[in-house]
Amino acid sequence: MTALQNDTFLRALLREPTEYTPVWLMRQAGRYLPEYCETRRQAGSFLALCKSKELATEVTLQPLDRYPLDAAILFSDILTVPDAMGLGLYFAEGEGPKFERPLREEAAIRALAVPDMSELRYVFDAVSSIRTALAGRVPLIGFSGSPFTLACYMIEGGGSDSYSRIKTMMYDRPELLHHTLDVNARTVTAYLNAQIEAGAQAVQIFDSWGGVLAYGKYQEFSLAYMRQLIAGLKREHDGRRVPVIVFTKGGGLWLEDIAASGCDAVGLDWTVDLAEARRRVGDKVALQGNFDPVALFAKPAAVEAEVARLLASFGSGSGHVFNLGHGISQFTPPEHVGALVQAVHKHSRQYHSAAHQAGA
Amino acid sequence: MTALQNDTFLRALLREPTEYTPVWLMRQAGRYLPEYCETRRQAGSFLALCKSKELATEVTLQPLDRYPLDAAILFSDILTVPDAMGLGLYFAEGEGPKFERPLREEAAIRALAVPDMSELRYVFDAVSSIRTALAGRVPLIGFSGSPFTLACYMIEGGGSDSYSRIKTMMYDRPELLHHTLDVNARTVTAYLNAQIEAGAQAVQIFDSWGGVLAYGKYQEFSLAYMRQLIAGLKREHDGRRVPVIVFTKGGGLWLEDIAASGCDAVGLDWTVDLAEARRRVGDKVALQGNFDPVALFAKPAAVEAEVARLLASFGSGSGHVFNLGHGISQFTPPEHVGALVQAVHKHSRQYHSAAHQAGA
Repeated sequence: MTALQNDTFLRALLREPTEYTPVWLMRQAGRYLPEYCETRRQAGSFLALCKSKELATEVTLQPLDRYPLDAAILFSDILTVPDAMGLGLYFAEGEGPKFERPLREEAAIRALAVPDMSELRYVFDAVSSIRTALAGRVPLIGFSGSPFTLACYMIEGGGSDSYSRIKTMMYDRPELLHHTLDVNARTVTAYLNAQIEAGAQAVQIFDSWGGVLAYGKYQEFSLAYMRQLIAGLKREHDGRRVPVIVFTKGGGLWLEDIAASGCDAVGLDWTVDLAEARRRVGDKVALQGNFDPVALFAKPAAVEAEVARLLASFGSGSGHVFNLGHGISQFTPPEHVGALVQAVHKHSRQYHSAAHQAGA
Repeated sequence: MTALQNDTFLRALLREPTEYTPVWLMRQAGRYLPEYCETRRQAGSFLALCKSKELATEVTLQPLDRYPLDAAILFSDILTVPDAMGLGLYFAEGEGPKFERPLREEAAIRALAVPDMSELRYVFDAVSSIRTALAGRVPLIGFSGSPFTLACYMIEGGGSDSYSRIKTMMYDRPELLHHTLDVNARTVTAYLNAQIEAGAQAVQIFDSWGGVLAYGKYQEFSLAYMRQLIAGLKREHDGRRVPVIVFTKGGGLWLEDIAASGCDAVGLDWTVDLAEARRRVGDKVALQGNFDPVALFAKPAAVEAEVARLLASFGSGSGHVFNLGHGISQFTPPEHVGALVQAVHKHSRQYHSAAHQAGA
């Protein structure tokens, strides 16, 4: 494969010196971009977009053609995994993702098994296709939902406000949930390893819903299974370390525990003080985040000021990947995203000078 | 007024010795109780229920007649305050609270003023009526939304998922939001003082949405105004201290800051480890919480086990008021609530023995 022309993102994840703070945005290929909406319209549906390697490649590269982002992320959906497990993913108009066969009966839970990875071949094909199209411009990130987050959708049958089904199972029948999470962890291990084999140069685990759990339950039902799956990942490919990022939305209280999961970097939402987070994790992991995506609705001057504030709070030295604290909103003005990316590159150089690298 | 027969709740808030851990539940007078639904049906609407002192008294006492709770809480709604400010509160069927005249124009924001407290007379009348009906059984809690939480509703015009209007104002026009919050803080001061005069024996500030703010913004736009209003509260009435509880949902990361706001107790949601929280606040404040309301869907045996686990994590000594980490769900089986209250009283006595009081 072609040599990487910009590996700033990978170096920052490993806390190696960089010239500036790299930036990418969760959901950077998405509905706020008119060109994405046009491709999706042509594809006919969101799932058709995910399942076509040509279209997935096209939308993955769209934000890179607009903004000097430091990483690309595979265009896909975390729910392809339970779909491959036979739950029957569909998108009800205006209602978000749903499953035809949610996990409700004990027999169905007991029968749950790691699917054959050939069911997810279209994802790995997309990874290869995107790597070819990127031609070494920036690294490609692969991803998966966390075992717990996948289980939320599988058991609730779709999105939820209260998570009452999965939590009731957790309190009343913990062994059933543990079984589900173990199958999910083994599935995600195989899934991410196949993405790495296909060319993903870093992987992120999206634990979107771990933050709804009580203290203690998070450690037992979400983090433990991320630790299990991370232990099974190929951490080197093509002679280079493949960094692992864990992002638990709402997990700021549990930062030390997450940093000890075996990951290379921890994603943070905007409620966390970067300076304090850095103090708490020491030199264990890099940090990724944590701009409030809603602050992108503010005018470019305010966006720039907020970027400068966040960079200053992290301070000097490497180990910070700039990102949002959650996926970008579909209502974000694209020119504000440009202001953010430019501001990160412009304001961060002062924190990465040779003097700072030595003194950090 | 009649002497208090059970002041366990008030003593725990002031970290004085108690015989057991007192318990009340946020939204304990609510839709999970069939008798509440019946009274509400008779009232015709939620607002009619709030505005009738007889009916508000009736529903406030309903949970106390079922369960040996250690406090009553005024039946009302946080949005009575912006309604009194002229925003025109109404409840759209199945859509939650809305305002006819949300704060959108600069002129309207500049014109915002502290309303005459006579507009809220029905609330203070309800407080007096409830005190009479309680006849000293347990203390009565008054409450208000926080300045920021009220501003969320006032500016968004109702509930919100993204808080994009208020956050955009915060980043683009911070001075307009500061003005709104200052008016709200002065209003809430007058409102809570009038509740205290009418007989509220403790007050809670519900900062339901402060947790959506970024680090730094929370301190500037939510906590600062709670500190301001707390400084203006009457802290003694009828010869007894009136404790103040601050509850920021999702505020666990900022616990030290909240504990320094001038309050007597901090409410916690279920993501916080009580042992760690206690270590963090030291002897500054009492703690209230933090049972996951969704865990009440589990069977009574599981509810009891979870109660025992939470009590053990707080450990020995006073300074803990048992509560949920958020309002009780309307779908909660009432008998599970009974199991929770019973379990708190039963399992907590071991942590309040004379030996523990001395050693704590």
